[in-house]
Amino acid sequence: MDSPNHNSAQGTDLPKLADDQVRLDAEGPLRLDCGVALDHVTVAYRTYGTLDAEKSNAVLVCHALTGDQYLAESHPITSKPGWWELMVGPGKVLDTDRYFVICPNILGGCMGTTGPKEIDPATGRPWGLSFPVITVADMVRAQAMLIAHLGIEKLFAVIGGSLGGMQVLEWAASYPERVFAAVPIAAAGHHTAQNIAFHEVGRQAIMADPDWCGGDYQSAGKHPHRGLAVARMAAHVTYLSETALHRKFGRRLQDRAGITYGFEADFQVESYLRHQGSTFVERFDANSYLYITRAMDYFDLAEAHGGVLAEAFRETPVRFCVISFTSDWLYPTSESRAIVHALNAVAANVSFAEITTEDGHDSFLLDEPEFREVLQGFLNGAADHRGLPRGRR
Amino acid sequence: MDSPNHNSAQGTDLPKLADDQVRLDAEGPLRLDCGVALDHVTVAYRTYGTLDAEKSNAVLVCHALTGDQYLAESHPITSKPGWWELMVGPGKVLDTDRYFVICPNILGGCMGTTGPKEIDPATGRPWGLSFPVITVADMVRAQAMLIAHLGIEKLFAVIGGSLGGMQVLEWAASYPERVFAAVPIAAAGHHTAQNIAFHEVGRQAIMADPDWCGGDYQSAGKHPHRGLAVARMAAHVTYLSETALHRKFGRRLQDRAGITYGFEADFQVESYLRHQGSTFVERFDANSYLYITRAMDYFDLAEAHGGVLAEAFRETPVRFCVISFTSDWLYPTSESRAIVHALNAVAANVSFAEITTEDGHDSFLLDEPEFREVLQGFLNGAADHRGLPRGRR
Repeated sequence: MDSPNHNSAQGTDLPKLADDQVRLDAEGPLRLDCGVALDHVTVAYRTYGTLDAEKSNAVLVCHALTGDQYLAESHPITSKPGWWELMVGPGKVLDTDRYFVICPNILGGCMGTTGPKEIDPATGRPWGLSFPVITVADMVRAQAMLIAHLGIEKLFAVIGGSLGGMQVLEWAASYPERVFAAVPIAAAGHHTAQNIAFHEVGRQAIMADPDWCGGDYQSAGKHPHRGLAVARMAAHVTYLSETALHRKFGRRLQDRAGITYGFEADFQVESYLRHQGSTFVERFDANSYLYITRAMDYFDLAEAHGGVLAEAFRETPVRFCVISFTSDWLYPTSESRAIVHALNAVAANVSFAEITTEDGHDSFLLDEPEFREVLQGFLNGAADHRGLPRGRR
Repeated sequence: MDSPNHNSAQGTDLPKLADDQVRLDAEGPLRLDCGVALDHVTVAYRTYGTLDAEKSNAVLVCHALTGDQYLAESHPITSKPGWWELMVGPGKVLDTDRYFVICPNILGGCMGTTGPKEIDPATGRPWGLSFPVITVADMVRAQAMLIAHLGIEKLFAVIGGSLGGMQVLEWAASYPERVFAAVPIAAAGHHTAQNIAFHEVGRQAIMADPDWCGGDYQSAGKHPHRGLAVARMAAHVTYLSETALHRKFGRRLQDRAGITYGFEADFQVESYLRHQGSTFVERFDANSYLYITRAMDYFDLAEAHGGVLAEAFRETPVRFCVISFTSDWLYPTSESRAIVHALNAVAANVSFAEITTEDGHDSFLLDEPEFREVLQGFLNGAADHRGLPRGRR
């Protein structure tokens, strides 16, 4: 694993960078959709594998709402395995003997990339709600600056699920000449009313927590743990299918012979949800949750191209592999199909796979053999086209 | 409309009853599933139409989680129309020229029936969390006491949607000789893992609000408005189908030309949800929300009958009409079908209708012509069988 320190020259009052952070001042300010030009943008990222001499084997993996750059290694806070260790490593689907895999923490995130949790260089205090509201396109702009900084002219592939898939679509739409292959997984060209509604519930849960302090909880030495946990619980239910919840938990009780006639977690599913909430708040920032969900809600690729999704991809040279999951009710197959139709309308090179699974939206994080095979097959074919040598194994 | 005052003799330290409340002391204590015997049970209820001399035309309507007894008249707090005015009134499906319609506030509710908001006669203080945890069967027991108090031996029909439908099933299972016809709508024989999960999110939102005060907010002069609003918002999303949300709101903006790059309610669906939350807290009690959702989670009619749902209905004389809605993903048709299969297994008299609609779980509250026709047809047929005279119109 390779995680070089690309520190730029630091201003006198800028925070010191960690090993896996880079300050992109040489790439100029980040011009955001809202009109703000953001100076001193810092991106934290991890890499796996080795960049070849031609810089042709780089794969950018875009993480989802609550993901981060710890793709294929233990998480520094939770010590859990990386969120895509199943997929990324020597001999795996994203074969680090063949590819140079890059995973940056997204703009607005809370694991070292510039976001509301970080220090505003202009004030020396945490951004909080003074951080500008960002978009998926802004996240992708920051990534493009990182990729330029790494000297990579064209990515072999951009891959991601959920919000990661939206970033993939945005990459293909905004930088078609800099992407050879694109794999949007369990994604959509826009956020639906139901998607927005569930996100709004989460945001309201956070803002309802008095410890949120109007967004300024860091200065107050507090953290809206309770509100953030509720937001996570509400979201988590939407990531699983009813079938998966039934199979995993059903109405089984949690370590007890009968119901207790109380408000403890009698049912396993309650205990599981509470655990999801309480572990999440240890590693995630509440304001980041607000900003990232907002960026997702704002995402509407068609709207940004005159109301016609196909226009986002006109004359695209990118090869696409669009993947959806049968039991994903949050970003259902119909949304992926709309992307495929748009790509077909401009005669793009696109393959489409709907994976049969009961595991719901989170399937892209799980061990789904058919999904693995589809992704491996597409990447192998694309890599051969691109002329990348086979891996060592 | 007829809402007689059936006040029992009042103990010296018992709260005075309102016109539409009755204290059921003459029926003895209410023996709850948890083992507690509840004295001085009070039920608030409204009636519409006139009970015939034979007391044969009574229709009990069971309300849902956030419903109440104000079925066909303005709500005393919100001044909005009754929640089933579409259905209940002279010449309507529940024709008050033909039927005597009774709608009690459920046990654990907050509109005058004994529940956590009311005064515990033993302490003179609000019950709060010292109120015993109740079940759907307990709610039905309290209703049965009311019906006995009214001198009605056999209800012509018991009707309800959602939690109301669960009460209908419980009525048919527990008091088959006291029900002529039963109409469970958009209901289920048990709560699924997903149902429990969404309820747990709501409960956690309430309990996360510091103004909940461990359940003792009334003594503290507070109310967990923020947590309760979040619970309502989360639940409300589940009551609508994605199609309905798309049709009603899509990605349309709320009174603005473009997105504002902020956390205000840019989208109509956000504004709608916030409104749902803020109006709900004016009329509903947070602890009631905890107790009633808990009762729903505990509901499992098969489990109470040796694990076989059909056993709940063996040799039932009740005529059933089971109704579901195509777009209801919270209590999907498969759950209603399971009820029908159980009824078929014991050769019960059952008709089943799946209504085609895009309006989701809340369809039973809305103007759905096919639903109205099915309900009217079933009730007319059953009333003729029962020998009830036709209405005046």
